[in-house]
Amino acid sequence: MKIVLIGAGNLATNLGKALSRAGHDIAQVYSRTEESAKTLALALKCPYTIQPTEVLKSADVYVISVKDTAIQSVAYALCEGREGQLFVHTAGSISVDILPTVRRGVFYPMQTFSKQKEVDFSIVPCFVEAQNDSDLQLLKDLAGTISDTVYEMNSENRQYLHLAAVFCCNFANHCYTLGAQLLKEHGDIPFSVMRPLIDETASKLYTLSPKEAQTGPAVRWDTNVIDKQLQLLDGKPEWQMIYKMLSESIHANS
Amino acid sequence: MKIVLIGAGNLATNLGKALSRAGHDIAQVYSRTEESAKTLALALKCPYTIQPTEVLKSADVYVISVKDTAIQSVAYALCEGREGQLFVHTAGSISVDILPTVRRGVFYPMQTFSKQKEVDFSIVPCFVEAQNDSDLQLLKDLAGTISDTVYEMNSENRQYLHLAAVFCCNFANHCYTLGAQLLKEHGDIPFSVMRPLIDETASKLYTLSPKEAQTGPAVRWDTNVIDKQLQLLDGKPEWQMIYKMLSESIHANS
Repeated sequence: MKIVLIGAGNLATNLGKALSRAGHDIAQVYSRTEESAKTLALALKCPYTIQPTEVLKSADVYVISVKDTAIQSVAYALCEGREGQLFVHTAGSISVDILPTVRRGVFYPMQTFSKQKEVDFSIVPCFVEAQNDSDLQLLKDLAGTISDTVYEMNSENRQYLHLAAVFCCNFANHCYTLGAQLLKEHGDIPFSVMRPLIDETASKLYTLSPKEAQTGPAVRWDTNVIDKQLQLLDGKPEWQMIYKMLSESIHANS
Repeated sequence: MKIVLIGAGNLATNLGKALSRAGHDIAQVYSRTEESAKTLALALKCPYTIQPTEVLKSADVYVISVKDTAIQSVAYALCEGREGQLFVHTAGSISVDILPTVRRGVFYPMQTFSKQKEVDFSIVPCFVEAQNDSDLQLLKDLAGTISDTVYEMNSENRQYLHLAAVFCCNFANHCYTLGAQLLKEHGDIPFSVMRPLIDETASKLYTLSPKEAQTGPAVRWDTNVIDKQLQLLDGKPEWQMIYKMLSESIHANS
């Protein structure tokens, strides 16, 4: 398919590379920042522009992959003169209706993207949505060329999916950050010692539900350990609050 | 080495199997529950007892692997008549001084153990502590036969290590539980769609620190998304609180 890529951040970069590898024609990259547009265009061996007026007038799909707060203004700037074209955005938490075109859709690859680490797209579940059947089929087909897992999902449910992803990814990762900080402050042990524990916690989910897999003082409601650990966090009232809320929530769920 | 295993729970079972495979002589299993003592003894092809008086009078090391609150009473019941022997417990958050013997120590394998899933012990970091150099060396040697990563660590620092493990394992896992619950309530998508995201979040730690790896609305301090997601959690005040505390903590740490 002939694709115009709008944006050149982490997700746009990872997605562009995956689409390009799958044999699609990335016809152009557009970004408001020349440097990032240039970098991505170079990687994809395609032209780029930083002028909305110079964006191609037709393509099979325009993929808007910019930060959430910029989607609307970018879409408005580009849809003029391209009214019949299919525009999609890639944001998990944003409704399809933020796009002003009749042919609008969503192409949400649910993964955590960092510039420093390339992602294997084949295992990234992609959630697609469109306003008519043919556009939906087009997006499903497109997603199927880079991912083994494609779901249709409407904007309402996708909001909850994205919220679930925030818990499973961002919040879990923040628990690692707090653990890393504790290790750094006490003893001289590298954070790498935590990796087997973290990997095992993640890998348990292939055989158990997270609820079944839970271990530790909170699920046992071992108040001796819980009270002692709260004391260890003296001087960090926010951490104590997080510890308390999560422990009580584990207990309530068990 | 000649080892007496005190306890027959998840950790005792996993540890006993690893020690046995490494060629040690598990001379006896003791547990207060006949059924679990029998099951483990059968798996290890060794004798068992449920009578403290029948526990062997000498061994290279007695490994007490029972729940935290039972360590002290079990140790008191067994040390009589075995005063010169080396007793160790396997609990991350408990001081070595809970043991009444002169030769006392800790052998803490930091991992999350479920009965349903066997663990590869070679990658489990083991933290050892003892009261004299020869016992310390003995524990280091013993740990070295089953694990590639052995550290000496005192009880004070081990408390913080265990607290860090609670964050990295139990609390991260609870974030998965909440994510799973959200998925279940909205749309008809299996929790397995979250695995690539969860795996990637864990595997990023091989190249980035968790702080560097953070993504999502909180680290961007995208208050549009944050406020909207708080609204999605209407009717779940504890979840809202957890969402708020963790998002603010991510923001404060970034």
